[in-house]
Amino acid sequence: MKLVRLGAVGAEIPGVLVGDDEFVDLSDVVGDFNESFFASGKLASLPEVVADRVAAGNVEPVGGRRFGAPFARPHQILCIGLNYSDHAAESGSKVPDEPIMFTKSPNTLIGPNDDVQIPRSSIKTDWEIELGIVIGRRSLYLANEAEAEAAIAGYVMVNDVSEREWQIERSGQWSKGKSAPTFNPAGPYLVTPDEVGDPMNLDMTLDIDGVRRQTGNTNKMVFGPAFLVHYLSQFLALEPGDLINTGTPPGVGLGMKPPTYLVGGETMTLTIAKLGTQTQRVLADDHAAK
Amino acid sequence: MKLVRLGAVGAEIPGVLVGDDEFVDLSDVVGDFNESFFASGKLASLPEVVADRVAAGNVEPVGGRRFGAPFARPHQILCIGLNYSDHAAESGSKVPDEPIMFTKSPNTLIGPNDDVQIPRSSIKTDWEIELGIVIGRRSLYLANEAEAEAAIAGYVMVNDVSEREWQIERSGQWSKGKSAPTFNPAGPYLVTPDEVGDPMNLDMTLDIDGVRRQTGNTNKMVFGPAFLVHYLSQFLALEPGDLINTGTPPGVGLGMKPPTYLVGGETMTLTIAKLGTQTQRVLADDHAAK
Repeated sequence: MKLVRLGAVGAEIPGVLVGDDEFVDLSDVVGDFNESFFASGKLASLPEVVADRVAAGNVEPVGGRRFGAPFARPHQILCIGLNYSDHAAESGSKVPDEPIMFTKSPNTLIGPNDDVQIPRSSIKTDWEIELGIVIGRRSLYLANEAEAEAAIAGYVMVNDVSEREWQIERSGQWSKGKSAPTFNPAGPYLVTPDEVGDPMNLDMTLDIDGVRRQTGNTNKMVFGPAFLVHYLSQFLALEPGDLINTGTPPGVGLGMKPPTYLVGGETMTLTIAKLGTQTQRVLADDHAAK
Repeated sequence: MKLVRLGAVGAEIPGVLVGDDEFVDLSDVVGDFNESFFASGKLASLPEVVADRVAAGNVEPVGGRRFGAPFARPHQILCIGLNYSDHAAESGSKVPDEPIMFTKSPNTLIGPNDDVQIPRSSIKTDWEIELGIVIGRRSLYLANEAEAEAAIAGYVMVNDVSEREWQIERSGQWSKGKSAPTFNPAGPYLVTPDEVGDPMNLDMTLDIDGVRRQTGNTNKMVFGPAFLVHYLSQFLALEPGDLINTGTPPGVGLGMKPPTYLVGGETMTLTIAKLGTQTQRVLADDHAAK
């Protein structure tokens, strides 16, 4: 299943994509794809509801509707750093012995094709295509990776937009450079695990203005999704609907020689196999224009 | 005003404390002290509502009711590191040039007198008394400290419980050691700025089993509340109801010679002038007992 939220910001309709450009509206049975939805266990019952509606012809064209993030603002967004060995190398860092965890403000979440705003005073806004994990049930002290797999509601593509000066050069702790508004495009859909198959074998690419910048495959992840969910649950409680950004492959602006950052006016195009395509325009620092 | 939330976990009644052991129940006019409440601006109208009810004799005894955290689970909990010069010294760190920001999972929030649970596998669970700031309105790119002051809904005492091995020795980034369940007792009340007066002149103490461990005053903060709110708003959007823990004075377990951590069975007692007193029992790692 591909969960989607379609419509204007703040008024998205929850549904399931069927075929290329049609969806089943679930707003009468699902308030939203939010923490209480994932906690309710209703996700497991949706395939039957969707099949019934498709059989009855209750499908609608997506048409020109905006794709929102395919889940509502989560309780927390956790991120894993340096989780691709070749990205660690380009960042001048060694592969960590165990996962590096940091966070993004949950209000960074936007739709997959919404504009990314370079924040005021930013000089080093950068891109990071990533595989995102959405949690399906409250998870604390999971016993093993099998339990962790069962706790995953699905997978989603994200762009972990990052301000490198703020992340690295402004008194430590990466979250400061990860949390500006619009810094977490997600979608177009949340794909359930049965439809993704092996999450450790997905090709991923990111282009800036049509020029390929990132090329990767999730088979180069140091720590895979089940390992990460099990690991994180030893330190904190994951809530239903929480998002985990699992790290980026090589090709970010920080790793270019010389380092090259977004200035506004660019178009970012991201694709992960089975997870769709995102396209974001980059807006220049609005303060500079004033 | 002293905002309180009284009652069992998950069923707290929002109200305002009047006198030492009485409160005005506001559950008919306030759903909860949560993000939408603070965003609504209703806080400004509460003094009149409370005065009317007190005049009409509509007050109730607090009695044996549990104090919950005086505000609901926030969108985010931000923390400032090494913000007291003498605590930086005991940690073997220099005072930062600008605020260090890290985060705690929002689901760490508990009532001021709830039990603190040492997490499984923890060997270095530590205490940190802190002044907390609760945000009253969405704040992005605040122009100056006056705007920042106007964005503060009130102040609250917190215990920024910390697992030092996880924070410092487990592949970087402090949030990993700050986010275990029960790691953010807050309360007993959220005090509005008019009643706090100068937030930069509040005595604070923390005792473990009656032995004084932390003694401080907020006048030793490197970066004060208005500075911090203005500063953070340049990097991210603060939402109404967000919590900012502003750093701890000296006397944490990490700074003792030798370092000394909680093992379970202790009682922590915290007091900040004008913000009340907290008392938490420390529960040993429940896994060790199995």
